[in-house]
Amino acid sequence: MSDTEYFEDISVGDRRSFGERTITRDDIVEFAREYDPQPIHTDEGAAAETMMGGLIASGWHTASVCMRLMIDNMSDRALVAARGIDELRWIRPVRPGDTLTVEVEVLETSAADGRNEIGYVDERLTGYNQDGEAVISWISLEMVSRRESLENGSETSAE
Amino acid sequence: MSDTEYFEDISVGDRRSFGERTITRDDIVEFAREYDPQPIHTDEGAAAETMMGGLIASGWHTASVCMRLMIDNMSDRALVAARGIDELRWIRPVRPGDTLTVEVEVLETSAADGRNEIGYVDERLTGYNQDGEAVISWISLEMVSRRESLENGSETSAE
Repeated sequence: MSDTEYFEDISVGDRRSFGERTITRDDIVEFAREYDPQPIHTDEGAAAETMMGGLIASGWHTASVCMRLMIDNMSDRALVAARGIDELRWIRPVRPGDTLTVEVEVLETSAADGRNEIGYVDERLTGYNQDGEAVISWISLEMVSRRESLENGSETSAE
Repeated sequence: MSDTEYFEDISVGDRRSFGERTITRDDIVEFAREYDPQPIHTDEGAAAETMMGGLIASGWHTASVCMRLMIDNMSDRALVAARGIDELRWIRPVRPGDTLTVEVEVLETSAADGRNEIGYVDERLTGYNQDGEAVISWISLEMVSRRESLENGSETSAE
């Protein structure tokens, strides 16, 4: 018996929390030099002069770290792919030494038009720092394999 | 006289295209090992067995590469920060050797409630591959400095 989580196993309101990962100064600078080379992410001196008062992580870095936590902790889900992301918000700055954890909550499940082997799962991801403050959130639009494919578009009796 | 682009200089419909950047196999694997370690992004053999028929870039990697192209080509804009991202969609897979370019188009400009020194600019970013096919798009919700701060919430005559 497999512990794989299929579409049929997922319900609105399901919630998981996991983590954690600490983001170092070097992590912040290394990511930003490659993908988001703005002084606020790469130059401690310049960053100290800004409203932020010091280095903060690129928003794309924070998102990528949360993605890594998802992959490390939800590998049992029969995820096919993500269709996209809605309502990505950077809520608070992430600073060197911050430790992130992630919570995901299922918002909606639905049939995928014309595709019997998968279903759609929309989940809200929220990333928190070590003080329990939300730093990032988004809605992930996922495609998840069904355990049993729908026949001719009709519902199976597997519920 | 500075060429800095302030909020007052930005109009709905403004459009820019720029690039380019080639994503190598090593880029794909290196990003994914750190942030999105799924076999479709890290394991050529396993990826070849999937519907995709080979390695594809992590969606977060593709987004980060487009961010880098933005930073390299829009440094003249008086960008304060991004409030968030709406409607991020991964439209087509990005494969080793693909060369990305980016187009940004201003969708909306608006006053920022209670903040006289900035304005809001909403832009659609679209990333294209070397065949001119869209591979990613999103709407970026930006805060941009005004050249002249609003006084008491009234419009300046700087338009």
